[in-house]
Amino acid sequence: MGQTIIEKIIAHNIGRESVKPGEIVTVNVDRVMLDDIMMPFIVNKFNEMGFKKVWDPDKVVMIYDHLVPASQQDDVRHYKVGDAFAEKYGMKHVHRSDGICHQLMTEAGYVKPGDVVFGTDSHTTTYGCVGAFSTGIGYTEMAGILGTGTLWVKVPETIRVEINGTLPENVMSKDVILRIIGDLGADGATYRALEFSGSAIENMTVASRMTMANMAIEAGAKCATFTPDEKTAEYCEIELNDFQKNLKGDADAVYLKTLKYQAEDFVPVMACPSQVDKIRNVTEVEGTVIDQVFLGSCTNGRLEDLRSAAEVLDGKKVAPFVKMIVTPASRKVYEEALREGILEKLIEAGAIVTHPGCGLCCGRTGGILSDGERVVATNNRNFLGRMGTSKVEIYLASPKTAAACAIAGKIVNP
Amino acid sequence: MGQTIIEKIIAHNIGRESVKPGEIVTVNVDRVMLDDIMMPFIVNKFNEMGFKKVWDPDKVVMIYDHLVPASQQDDVRHYKVGDAFAEKYGMKHVHRSDGICHQLMTEAGYVKPGDVVFGTDSHTTTYGCVGAFSTGIGYTEMAGILGTGTLWVKVPETIRVEINGTLPENVMSKDVILRIIGDLGADGATYRALEFSGSAIENMTVASRMTMANMAIEAGAKCATFTPDEKTAEYCEIELNDFQKNLKGDADAVYLKTLKYQAEDFVPVMACPSQVDKIRNVTEVEGTVIDQVFLGSCTNGRLEDLRSAAEVLDGKKVAPFVKMIVTPASRKVYEEALREGILEKLIEAGAIVTHPGCGLCCGRTGGILSDGERVVATNNRNFLGRMGTSKVEIYLASPKTAAACAIAGKIVNP
Repeated sequence: MGQTIIEKIIAHNIGRESVKPGEIVTVNVDRVMLDDIMMPFIVNKFNEMGFKKVWDPDKVVMIYDHLVPASQQDDVRHYKVGDAFAEKYGMKHVHRSDGICHQLMTEAGYVKPGDVVFGTDSHTTTYGCVGAFSTGIGYTEMAGILGTGTLWVKVPETIRVEINGTLPENVMSKDVILRIIGDLGADGATYRALEFSGSAIENMTVASRMTMANMAIEAGAKCATFTPDEKTAEYCEIELNDFQKNLKGDADAVYLKTLKYQAEDFVPVMACPSQVDKIRNVTEVEGTVIDQVFLGSCTNGRLEDLRSAAEVLDGKKVAPFVKMIVTPASRKVYEEALREGILEKLIEAGAIVTHPGCGLCCGRTGGILSDGERVVATNNRNFLGRMGTSKVEIYLASPKTAAACAIAGKIVNP
Repeated sequence: MGQTIIEKIIAHNIGRESVKPGEIVTVNVDRVMLDDIMMPFIVNKFNEMGFKKVWDPDKVVMIYDHLVPASQQDDVRHYKVGDAFAEKYGMKHVHRSDGICHQLMTEAGYVKPGDVVFGTDSHTTTYGCVGAFSTGIGYTEMAGILGTGTLWVKVPETIRVEINGTLPENVMSKDVILRIIGDLGADGATYRALEFSGSAIENMTVASRMTMANMAIEAGAKCATFTPDEKTAEYCEIELNDFQKNLKGDADAVYLKTLKYQAEDFVPVMACPSQVDKIRNVTEVEGTVIDQVFLGSCTNGRLEDLRSAAEVLDGKKVAPFVKMIVTPASRKVYEEALREGILEKLIEAGAIVTHPGCGLCCGRTGGILSDGERVVATNNRNFLGRMGTSKVEIYLASPKTAAACAIAGKIVNP
């Protein structure tokens, strides 16, 4: 009987030949990611549970990203609690201002194909881009893992998404995942694994896959999985072993359903206010006047995203009344964008380039929006009140679309 | 009878041969600077006063800097009010995200030697660096100028500060002005002009003079004046006319007093918590553990400041527990620092480089400090609560000192 990618990862992790959807199994955790927002809660729970040591300090990665630099007094407490915890239990992987957690987990080599990884942030699904099983958990579960190194999970059913062909030039992987979320609905994949395949997926960079894995949670998915390939190996700076090479859905694997797309059919789309699955072709909302553009986040703050936007903006200017805020996903992305001349182009066009981190995506300073304002943003959620007041309209789009809108001062097709 | 620089500027402005300290005269305003914080208040007063037009829209410069990008909902109202005001009365010089007001006023060529300039921010004394008379005013006075183009002022007495010789390598103009403020006291120059002269001043860049003019207000001074020279002409991209060339204190001018310094006697100093005039040699407070370093502001966020810090940090690392926040003073400074490789060095050393603007100096996001924390900062005020809670200790220092402290994680002499 064939297996899906997620079934293969879980089976391998627990030393079995196979597992079945619905089974409850206890996995051995390869890595955990603790973010700054949850830090004090995790530490409190860990103490409450009476653990005397952290199961494996080397497998723990602590990342301060949402709250760096501090924009209110209490933020600092989160670092202090984290620093003291790290010192007490011997954690060495502490990132105090290096960028967004999900970017760092893959970029800094903490996650490898086939790993089982949990993090205290909903977008932990991101690491599926390299063929890992990763998902977000609460702070109580994290405290449990820190003490035991294990967590029980129910093996999810898998929805297969197959995309063949070549994407049009103005379409990015963001448009692809937005369309899929629109088709599935915001709860259409709840507790299921999304497994991506097809020639369009094979042709994507790891960064583009990361955008899609990142947003899988927006359809409710437990996780997203991609087959590791040579690009993955290069990105992770490893050689794939036999287990990793075999992380593809078997021909006779059982899927809950399969969605098939032809890449040429995709067009630039937006998630319109204020639901992630309210997907419209950009042409349907063209002409809507905007106040701000945000290019960044763990969804679309990578080098290829900044490069795409810079190409659109090169030699042009952001509309005078529009503030375009660019937040690279990590220190490394910032450095590379700087060296490649991308930041220079963005600044010359009139963009405001901030330090790396979560920034405006979670409404933590740097461009909070106010009543009646509209923003085109490359991040992953357009929920009411996320990037300012509850009377702000957030349109989610690709970096290319966002850059084109910044120039026009209104929504336009890239 | 000889005249001081400020007397010459005022006399020239009102078409007289000379003026005397204590006289009240009505000056013709060459430029005004309106900042974002005061914008709604200025506009309200302007309307209340019943003016139907702005006296000369070309002489009005509107700069959004403290509140860009927005860190709370109400910030956006300040831009909206400003934008509507500019549109209604025809103001074209509106800077929406180009950097700190005081940096832009000279950098963008709005102020020339001999000009009379007012701004709604206390550090408007800065433009004395190019030989202008400039000072901060309230929003009511600004509304009056917008309607009439004039303002009454009392001709200030002048305190002469003469510095001859060559500054030691680890001493910057920040150390010089801090020492002078310490000697004068925070109210030692209240409503007086500070006139700087001597070979050490002549050898300074315009940027270094800007640091000193900026902080003149911290001794209470109405304004700071420097003699325009070839460096000023180059900076302002003009040729000096006869009036401008003559902007030096006459040998027989009357000064309230003269302070004389020998440049070789200066050492790196700090303004210690929480008074600007509590000046100590860095060696006296050496070893004090710090949490953060701030390099930026209208005092010390210029290219030479960033370059000095980058030279200290080159190939070294910011201490792991210290957050070093670098905020270039303007978009132009950012671009130049980027092209010169300065930003790269700072980032590689572990600094957090933010978008240009006022940033942390006025406690507007990007590194707010919390109870019990200590920061070494290059800005101009260490008042209680300015950069975080009232239980934060702020040490003001030069960029070289700040960079050295960032590496050490404690106060050290550069």
